Amino acid sequence: MAPPRVVIIGGGFGGLQAAKALARAPVQVTLLDRRNHHVFTPLLYQVATAGLSPGDIASPIRWILRRQRNVSVQMADVQAVDAARRVVQLRDGPGDREVPYDYLIVASGATHAYFGHADWARVAPGLKTLEDALTVRREVLLAFERAERERDPLAQRRLLTFVVVGAGPTGVELAGALAEISRHALASDFRMIAPETARIILIEAGPSVLAAYPDALRAFARRALERLGVSVWTGSAVTSIAPGQVRVGTETIDAGTILWAAGVAASPLGASLGAPIDHAGRVQVLPDLSVPGQPNVFVVGDLAAFPGPNGRPLPGVIQVALQQADHAAKNIVRALKHETSAPFVYDDPGNMATIGRNSAVCDLGRIQLKGFTAWLAWVFLHVYKLIGFRNRLSVMTEWAFSYVTYQRSVRLITHESIADNR
Amino acid sequence: MAPPRVVIIGGGFGGLQAAKALARAPVQVTLLDRRNHHVFTPLLYQVATAGLSPGDIASPIRWILRRQRNVSVQMADVQAVDAARRVVQLRDGPGDREVPYDYLIVASGATHAYFGHADWARVAPGLKTLEDALTVRREVLLAFERAERERDPLAQRRLLTFVVVGAGPTGVELAGALAEISRHALASDFRMIAPETARIILIEAGPSVLAAYPDALRAFARRALERLGVSVWTGSAVTSIAPGQVRVGTETIDAGTILWAAGVAASPLGASLGAPIDHAGRVQVLPDLSVPGQPNVFVVGDLAAFPGPNGRPLPGVIQVALQQADHAAKNIVRALKHETSAPFVYDDPGNMATIGRNSAVCDLGRIQLKGFTAWLAWVFLHVYKLIGFRNRLSVMTEWAFSYVTYQRSVRLITHESIADNR
Repeated sequence: MAPPRVVIIGGGFGGLQAAKALARAPVQVTLLDRRNHHVFTPLLYQVATAGLSPGDIASPIRWILRRQRNVSVQMADVQAVDAARRVVQLRDGPGDREVPYDYLIVASGATHAYFGHADWARVAPGLKTLEDALTVRREVLLAFERAERERDPLAQRRLLTFVVVGAGPTGVELAGALAEISRHALASDFRMIAPETARIILIEAGPSVLAAYPDALRAFARRALERLGVSVWTGSAVTSIAPGQVRVGTETIDAGTILWAAGVAASPLGASLGAPIDHAGRVQVLPDLSVPGQPNVFVVGDLAAFPGPNGRPLPGVIQVALQQADHAAKNIVRALKHETSAPFVYDDPGNMATIGRNSAVCDLGRIQLKGFTAWLAWVFLHVYKLIGFRNRLSVMTEWAFSYVTYQRSVRLITHESIADNR
Repeated sequence: MAPPRVVIIGGGFGGLQAAKALARAPVQVTLLDRRNHHVFTPLLYQVATAGLSPGDIASPIRWILRRQRNVSVQMADVQAVDAARRVVQLRDGPGDREVPYDYLIVASGATHAYFGHADWARVAPGLKTLEDALTVRREVLLAFERAERERDPLAQRRLLTFVVVGAGPTGVELAGALAEISRHALASDFRMIAPETARIILIEAGPSVLAAYPDALRAFARRALERLGVSVWTGSAVTSIAPGQVRVGTETIDAGTILWAAGVAASPLGASLGAPIDHAGRVQVLPDLSVPGQPNVFVVGDLAAFPGPNGRPLPGVIQVALQQADHAAKNIVRALKHETSAPFVYDDPGNMATIGRNSAVCDLGRIQLKGFTAWLAWVFLHVYKLIGFRNRLSVMTEWAFSYVTYQRSVRLITHESIADNR
C-alpha cells in the first residue's frame, strides 16, 4: 500500500519545518510553493538596503530538502483547496492541475495589507519577498541618483525624503538602515548632493515604536533611532498616500520614497478552506491546529489565528510558525497511529530587533538586552539560524566588511532606467 | 578659468579606465552611464548559471570612483551626440537634458546582434548585462522546475534540452557551466527527472570552437566540453529560431531553452557621431583613436573599429578597451599641452576561457596552458582583476565552496511564476 500523502502548501518557515518534522514519518510528503526558494525573512531589510545579496538570505527549497527522500518539492502556484474532494488545485503550468492529499498542512503565510487602500500598494512597496526587497533597493538607490541630477532644490529635497510607515521590527530596522546608508555608505559617492542630509521619517499610528516590547526597550529604540537621524512620528495615522506625498491628518510630507511596513493580511487561501476566518483573513483553528470539521487539515504560522495567553491571536513571528509546524506534524503522526490529537501550547522565546549597524533590543522574557550587547546577540543568532553553511559564511564576510568599512556593497540598480517616471 | 570638461560615455572597462587615467589631469570629468554599476563581464556566465550573485561581479560606478575628486558620475541614458554644438543629449530624467564637453570619450560598447532576426532576441536571450544574466538564470532554472512537473516524456525532453548558439569564449563557458550544473549541482535535487540526462548542445557556424585560439587549444577545448557531456556541433549555421525550436539547415532541435552567444553589434551611438562606421556599426577611428574631423572626440573599446596587425579590426575584448582608454586619455592630456596626438598600438597579452569547473585554455602568445593549470591561472587572474576588495573575498568564498561541494548556491528564480507562458 502506498504511504499516506501529506501535502504542505508554502515553503516559508512553517512549511519547511513541517516537512523536516515528517522526515522519519511513514508518509510521502509533497511541498508546494510558488517560488523555488525559501527566504530568511528577518534579513530582507538588509537586501532592501543593499547590505546583502538576495542569494545570501535565500536558498532553493529543493536544495534544503535534497537529502530527505520522502519529500518531493513542486514549484506551483496554488489556487484553492477542494476539501470535499481532498485535492489542492494548482494554477496553470506543466503537469497535473490537482494534487490529492490524505493530510494537508497549509502554511501559505501573509502578505501586505493596505487597510482597504489597494492603490497605496503601487506607491508604497512593502517587504515580504525577495522581489519586494529588490524593488525597495531600486527605489532607494534611484532616489539618490535622481537627486544628484536634479537642479530644483525643492524637488531634490523631496527625492531625499524617505518615509517608512509602521514602526514594528521591520519598520524600525528599515529606518535604521536607511539612516546608516545616507550617513555613512553613500557619504562620499556624490558630488552635487550631501546624502547625509536625507530625511528619514518613521510614521506610526500607535503610541510608540516596537509596540510588543517592554517600556524600557521601546524608549531605548526610539532614542537610538533619533540618534541615527531618524524622525520618529508616533501617534500619527497615515490618512492618504499618493506618488511623492504622504498625508498624516492635516499635515503633508513631500517624500520621493514611501515604504510600507504597517499591515499584514493572511493569504487568501485560508478562505478557500471553508473554515471560519477572522478580520485579517486568518483561519480560526481548533486547539490542535486543525480546521473545524476537517481533522486532516492543519493551518500553521501567519495564516493561523490561534489565541495567545492574553486572548489575542499569537503574533505572526517565526517562532510561532516553527512550533506550530512541529506540532501539526506530530498530530499527523499521532493520527497515523490512531491516537487522538494534542492541543498546541506556545513557548515564547522572546523578540529582537536591530537599530542601525551596532545597536539592537532583545526581549527574552526575564532577560532584556539593549545596545551593542543586544546587537551582538542579534548577529550571532541570525548568522546561526541562516539556512546553509554557504549563506552563513557569505553573510559573515559581508557583515565583517561593512562593519569595518561602513560600506554597503550590493548597491545595484537593475531592471529600471533613471528616466522611467513613477 | 574653469578646467576643460571631459565627458565619458559608458562605465564599462573602457569608460572607467579613461576616467581613472585622467585622475591627475587638470580637467573636470563627467562619466555618464545608463546603469549605476560597472559589471565584470568575464564572470557574467557565472551569474547566468547560478554560481555567483550579481553583487559579486558588479560595483556602483560612483563607489569605484568615489575618491577621485575630479570625476562626477551621472546615471543617465545618452540619446545622441551633437558634435556641432559639442553637447551630449540625454533622454528624459531629472535635471539638464544636455551635457556640454570640450573633449569626449565614447565607450558605449556593444550589444547582441541577431543578424537581422530581431524576433530571435525574445526567444534566445544573450549575455551582456546583469539583467541578461538574471534572465538566463531564471530560464535555465525554470526549465528544470517545469520538467519536474511535466508528465509528457517528449515535453520533458524538450524542457531538458539547452541550446547555446555561438562557440566563442562566452558560448563555451556557458555550455560548460550548464553541463556542470545538470551533472553535479542539481543531481540530487529532483525526484521525477534526472537532471544529468539534460542535453546541452553548442552550435557554431564556423569550423571550430574558440576560433581565435591556436589549433591545439581548440582541440583540447572541444574534447573537454564533450567529456562534460556537451554536444558540440561545429560548421552548423542556425537558420531559424522559434519558441522551443532551433533549426540548423534541414535539421530541427526541440529545445526549451535557447541562449545566444553569437553576434555582437556596436552601440547605436556610433552612428550619431557623424563618423564613418563599418558593417557592425563600429566607428572607423583614426590612428590616434579620434573621430575623423573631430580631433576632440575619441572612441574606445567595442565601439571602435581599429585595424589590427592582420588588417581586421581588433576584437571586442577587455584588453583592447583598457589600452585604448588609457591612450585616449593620454591624447587628451597631450592636446591640453598643445602637443600632437600619438597613434595607438595594441599590445596583445593573450586570451583565456574556462571549460567547466576545473579546466581552461590560456593562449598567452609564447606560452599556452590547458587543463587544470590553465584553470588555476584563470581563477587567480579573474579574482585579482575583480573590482573591489569585497568582491574578491566574496567570489573566493563562493568558488571555494562550490569547488568543494559541487554546489551552485545562487539558484534563485525571481520575478516570474512557473505558470507564465513564454
